[in-house]
Amino acid sequence: MKRKISIKGKEFGTGRFLICIPIVSANEQSIVEDFKEAADLNPDLIEWRSDYFEGIGNIEQTIEVLNRIKELTQNIPVIFTCRHFSEGGRCGLDPEIRYKMFRKVLSTGIVDLLDIEMINGEGYINSVKKLIDQYGKKLILSYHNFQKTPEEQFIVDKLIEGESLGADIVKVALMPNSSDDVLALLSATGKARKIIDIPMITMAMGDLGRVSRVWGNAFGSEVSFASMRQTSAPGQIEFGDLKKIIEFFSKDGVK
Amino acid sequence: MKRKISIKGKEFGTGRFLICIPIVSANEQSIVEDFKEAADLNPDLIEWRSDYFEGIGNIEQTIEVLNRIKELTQNIPVIFTCRHFSEGGRCGLDPEIRYKMFRKVLSTGIVDLLDIEMINGEGYINSVKKLIDQYGKKLILSYHNFQKTPEEQFIVDKLIEGESLGADIVKVALMPNSSDDVLALLSATGKARKIIDIPMITMAMGDLGRVSRVWGNAFGSEVSFASMRQTSAPGQIEFGDLKKIIEFFSKDGVK
Repeated sequence: MKRKISIKGKEFGTGRFLICIPIVSANEQSIVEDFKEAADLNPDLIEWRSDYFEGIGNIEQTIEVLNRIKELTQNIPVIFTCRHFSEGGRCGLDPEIRYKMFRKVLSTGIVDLLDIEMINGEGYINSVKKLIDQYGKKLILSYHNFQKTPEEQFIVDKLIEGESLGADIVKVALMPNSSDDVLALLSATGKARKIIDIPMITMAMGDLGRVSRVWGNAFGSEVSFASMRQTSAPGQIEFGDLKKIIEFFSKDGVK
Repeated sequence: MKRKISIKGKEFGTGRFLICIPIVSANEQSIVEDFKEAADLNPDLIEWRSDYFEGIGNIEQTIEVLNRIKELTQNIPVIFTCRHFSEGGRCGLDPEIRYKMFRKVLSTGIVDLLDIEMINGEGYINSVKKLIDQYGKKLILSYHNFQKTPEEQFIVDKLIEGESLGADIVKVALMPNSSDDVLALLSATGKARKIIDIPMITMAMGDLGRVSRVWGNAFGSEVSFASMRQTSAPGQIEFGDLKKIIEFFSKDGVK
């Protein structure tokens, strides 16, 4: 991979999974407490799934949350995500309001990575990309399918598309309906790894896809999402278990 | 699968891995102690890798060992294997002596399954098959490659060949040199499962292949081999760990 990324000392592209804990609480106090609990576990990344926040849409409140987690995340890269309804999230904000929120959020310097869906389209993505560059942050472009796993070539193409659209990191999360679907996701990840230059995050969701969360790094996936108490996507594994099982498979991961 | 097998209450073909502990000690006393230790762990199967036995070739001594483990294995199916040099074992016995040994071994009634390599050829396999039928036991026909993983279609064909040659269970163990090789083994297993009627045991060996030992059941492999202290093949996982991780993935296994 040509474009390795290092954020707060966490390196994407070593062959070892980085572990990310998503925060999915609804109110400010719980979110801050969750960030504290997560930070104590010392994960490689924390993702704030701001679409779960009851104050979402209120930019001031959103910034207040960020200010309260600033100290906690000094050494841990933070992903800011407001996942859209259409891709498994709860965010239904108007694109313009979202854009304003992104600008404010990025301007605090507290957030290191922003995740938006490829489905937002080239124009919107380009505007957000400009903000990202302006503030020296990184953009994750993502694609989710909670119903099924498309064909292998479609998955490869999606990962390539993310790079073409200007992602710093591309993410694809799919729902398998068979173990063969899980093989397709892993195989597509391996194929895309040989084509594109940026870090990838891929996963097969649900119970069937669990193996991708502990072995996907062998094909070039860089991040695995772990739950604390509450999952943000089906099949997520509890942080301690995930760490142990990734370690168990780690010889596969580092090639 | 049409031809499910049940031995001493252990069922092949449920989607759940049966766990087998191979015994690889050299002298009689250690072998008996290992069988005791293994039986205490209550695995689904125990395999005596008789090619590790220092008395191999001496049929009386071999039968003596079996008599001493009879009580220990009343509720646990026993596989008798004298793995050939050419397939990762230590057995260099003349085929005729081996055949005599098999007859004596089967006549004790202590052994439930006999594993021989497909490479023995149709004629030899047919003779052994007759013994198997005479004593009402089961035949495992196996293929090992400790150097590499052949192409997916070759693996499918090998599994089909095992059935054609009259196996009750067919086993294929391969060495992967990449994670893609592991995918090939898993995918071939899934494809063969749709074609043949007998239970299969497949695995990718080595550290790279570990995932096949805990997830291969999702594609139709029926048995995973666990180590106690000493492994009989590279990549084998310790019994307790294997059990825990298989359980963790068990939702994949039962489709």
